[in-house]
Amino acid sequence: MTTHTPDQLHKTAGAEAVPAARLNSRHLLGIAGLEADEITLILNTAEAMKEIGHRPIKKVPTLRGRTVVNLFFEPSTRTRTSFEIAEKRLSADTFSIATASSSVTKGETLADTVKNIEAMSPDMIVMRHASSGAPHLLSRFCRSAIINAGDGMHEHPTQALLDAFTIRERKGRLAGLKVAIIGDLLHSRVLRSNVLLLNTMGADVWTCGPATLIPPGIDRFEVRSTTSVNEAVEAADVVMLLRIQHERMRGHFFPSIREYFALFGMTPERLRRAQPDVIIMHPGPMNRGVEIDSEVADGPYSVILEQVANGVAVRMAVLYLLAGESE
Amino acid sequence: MTTHTPDQLHKTAGAEAVPAARLNSRHLLGIAGLEADEITLILNTAEAMKEIGHRPIKKVPTLRGRTVVNLFFEPSTRTRTSFEIAEKRLSADTFSIATASSSVTKGETLADTVKNIEAMSPDMIVMRHASSGAPHLLSRFCRSAIINAGDGMHEHPTQALLDAFTIRERKGRLAGLKVAIIGDLLHSRVLRSNVLLLNTMGADVWTCGPATLIPPGIDRFEVRSTTSVNEAVEAADVVMLLRIQHERMRGHFFPSIREYFALFGMTPERLRRAQPDVIIMHPGPMNRGVEIDSEVADGPYSVILEQVANGVAVRMAVLYLLAGESE
Amino acid sequence: MTTHTPDQLHKTAGAEAVPAARLNSRHLLGIAGLEADEITLILNTAEAMKEIGHRPIKKVPTLRGRTVVNLFFEPSTRTRTSFEIAEKRLSADTFSIATASSSVTKGETLADTVKNIEAMSPDMIVMRHASSGAPHLLSRFCRSAIINAGDGMHEHPTQALLDAFTIRERKGRLAGLKVAIIGDLLHSRVLRSNVLLLNTMGADVWTCGPATLIPPGIDRFEVRSTTSVNEAVEAADVVMLLRIQHERMRGHFFPSIREYFALFGMTPERLRRAQPDVIIMHPGPMNRGVEIDSEVADGPYSVILEQVANGVAVRMAVLYLLAGESE
Repeated sequence: MTTHTPDQLHKTAGAEAVPAARLNSRHLLGIAGLEADEITLILNTAEAMKEIGHRPIKKVPTLRGRTVVNLFFEPSTRTRTSFEIAEKRLSADTFSIATASSSVTKGETLADTVKNIEAMSPDMIVMRHASSGAPHLLSRFCRSAIINAGDGMHEHPTQALLDAFTIRERKGRLAGLKVAIIGDLLHSRVLRSNVLLLNTMGADVWTCGPATLIPPGIDRFEVRSTTSVNEAVEAADVVMLLRIQHERMRGHFFPSIREYFALFGMTPERLRRAQPDVIIMHPGPMNRGVEIDSEVADGPYSVILEQVANGVAVRMAVLYLLAGESE
Repeated sequence: MTTHTPDQLHKTAGAEAVPAARLNSRHLLGIAGLEADEITLILNTAEAMKEIGHRPIKKVPTLRGRTVVNLFFEPSTRTRTSFEIAEKRLSADTFSIATASSSVTKGETLADTVKNIEAMSPDMIVMRHASSGAPHLLSRFCRSAIINAGDGMHEHPTQALLDAFTIRERKGRLAGLKVAIIGDLLHSRVLRSNVLLLNTMGADVWTCGPATLIPPGIDRFEVRSTTSVNEAVEAADVVMLLRIQHERMRGHFFPSIREYFALFGMTPERLRRAQPDVIIMHPGPMNRGVEIDSEVADGPYSVILEQVANGVAVRMAVLYLLAGESE
Repeated sequence: MTTHTPDQLHKTAGAEAVPAARLNSRHLLGIAGLEADEITLILNTAEAMKEIGHRPIKKVPTLRGRTVVNLFFEPSTRTRTSFEIAEKRLSADTFSIATASSSVTKGETLADTVKNIEAMSPDMIVMRHASSGAPHLLSRFCRSAIINAGDGMHEHPTQALLDAFTIRERKGRLAGLKVAIIGDLLHSRVLRSNVLLLNTMGADVWTCGPATLIPPGIDRFEVRSTTSVNEAVEAADVVMLLRIQHERMRGHFFPSIREYFALFGMTPERLRRAQPDVIIMHPGPMNRGVEIDSEVADGPYSVILEQVANGVAVRMAVLYLLAGESE
């Protein structure tokens, strides 16, 4: 086991108490750059938004007449749908553009594609792109607010925010919790955003995966890294599993799915080492029998479907806070 | 010709008179299980809905703030569009997800995909799937109302309801009418739903097609089955043609399209055996010159485009009745 | 250089002054058939619509309860999105159907596909199709208003109208301006619609491109045609570049992209021959380094992104004027 910068681990603990009055940036490009009080503002706002989803009429006029473009250069039914539902609950006009590489094959640059969309005066652009940093590039010249819905292997900030919301709702806090993140650490934008957020909020983050799937630069983050799943789970308050993209990497990073499951799969037995009130998280889509046993996925500790439900509330909060900025 | 259970044919005739006050189930999974008075309730409600489509402002606020997800695992532009128009005329918020097999390739189960969507709190899920029984499976754990928009070779209940609506509008009744259903009986969910509905409402159903396209278990239904198109059409009040999926089955079930048309194609000559006020129906998309002659498709007896128009009204009725349940 | 019918060039100059009270047709199939006063009516209406796009709440209830179907048989993210935004700003209910060739593979004719959609009672159909004349064919039997969003190599009327709007906004007039259209003249519906419109409004149109890309019948139009880019640009008020579809035609119509750019690419040097207040237009998507130098595309004379912005206003105007007709 290696310990990384343990002395800094709790530096911002307790920062949740006082939320910011507003977000500092007019974009949400990543968790990097967000202050603890901004994160707390988003989570508190999401609590109010969640209540709207329980009403018979799940709709408020907050963003009526505002235009949100969902610009997805990578397919993502679940994230796109979550954003669309959030947008419509706020009464925004929504447009979803799944471009695949259509504009690219027509020889147009990404900047030209986005400038064209922006010329139609949207208020916000929710964007997913396979290239890390694409939303940051665009934010330099866009008038509209940009929300990063996942860029390459870089960040997926609304995923980390909905994870934090779910943890906070269950545990009452983020600071001081032991959070074990297990799975494909190498290719995961979910990991990066979560580590940044959990560090900022004072959680104690552990990462665990096969040595071949640990990113070389992981020691730049304030995390403890281990290849022992037992060590990671030991006394954990939160166990967060990351998807193994086995359809892509079979045979390259570990010998077989069977072996991965044998060494890292989250089973009821392994889970017994965690806190008695541990919660199990997964950003989806799940590979049952690969990174997670079905008994765990559907068991009493699982909050996986709560994460999905909270995703709508958190995205409503982000849209609301950034739209306020653009008024 | 074979006659099946003729003694039971009119057992529910006249049942149309008294509609139910409400639907017994909170889902519409199929015609199987619907009582005659429930069918009458849906058809009567659709009459009121049809009127809305004739107004300059084709919109009522009935489902404002309700969320309907159209989850299509099989492509179907026409059924999906019909549902979407019905949903928007009722002011619902609609989301259409055409998943193809994207989630399947990502290793997620159908149940997980649908549980994820449901976690976002839709009020209703309209679902098409290539597997027979998929909506029934999901209805066991879903909180939202499920509407089956076609499952494999099993059922397509809103198609049968719009067909019944069209017949009743033209003939004033369903009971006692001779309805001849001609074409691919083997692969058709439209056939099954129509036979179940027409039986329940007391119509006299005949089925006709090449021997290779007659399903082995057809004698479980209360239908008369024949391979003679003349016998089927004789004195028919309604001739309903089923689509021949010739692009898939050429050479497997009959020698050629030319031969199919020669033996079963609906021509003006064949139609002369039917009642003088016969109506011609087709669920679409039509193969002109395969199952139907263009002169018949575009002729005075054809109600094919009325079926499409009525489809919106019938779907509005179903959405309205099931949403009422979820209130 | 060849001069075509120069004596007719200014026959309608000044016609802009008095707009029509209404459009003569209930469809917008092309620029052909539009009178100068109808064009002026559309452009004046678009001015009012453009103002709506600058409000915080970019929405008016004009088309509430009206149904617009966007029926795209060819992919076109940018034109479809522009129409969708226009429709939602007018509060219409919109449905976008990207059919590719799905209905064709199912053996259905174009007429049947459109009749089916029309049976669902849309108020307007916005249609793009790869076959020239498809919208004209459909307008013969459709009750709903048809708007041509591009048909084959024939017309793209809303593009020409937004181009005219942009020119008029910048120059205060269309009559008497020298407009040089440079690029692929052979395959361009944008060219045809622009030439028809600019001729009607009294502009002085020049066309320029490689001899292999000049359509044989260009002398039927009232344009001056040249293969010298310098001659075309000389004293031009407007330089409009047409997209070179180099991914399709490399090696067929000119030796290489490098050669095309060397001979016809719009560079700052070439632009110096134009009027000091020349404007640079492009219908998009642009090929930087093929038909246009990046310095020109992003330079002070470029109104390319204004064209996109104006497209929404012009489409709102067309939808509004045709919906008025259908009331």
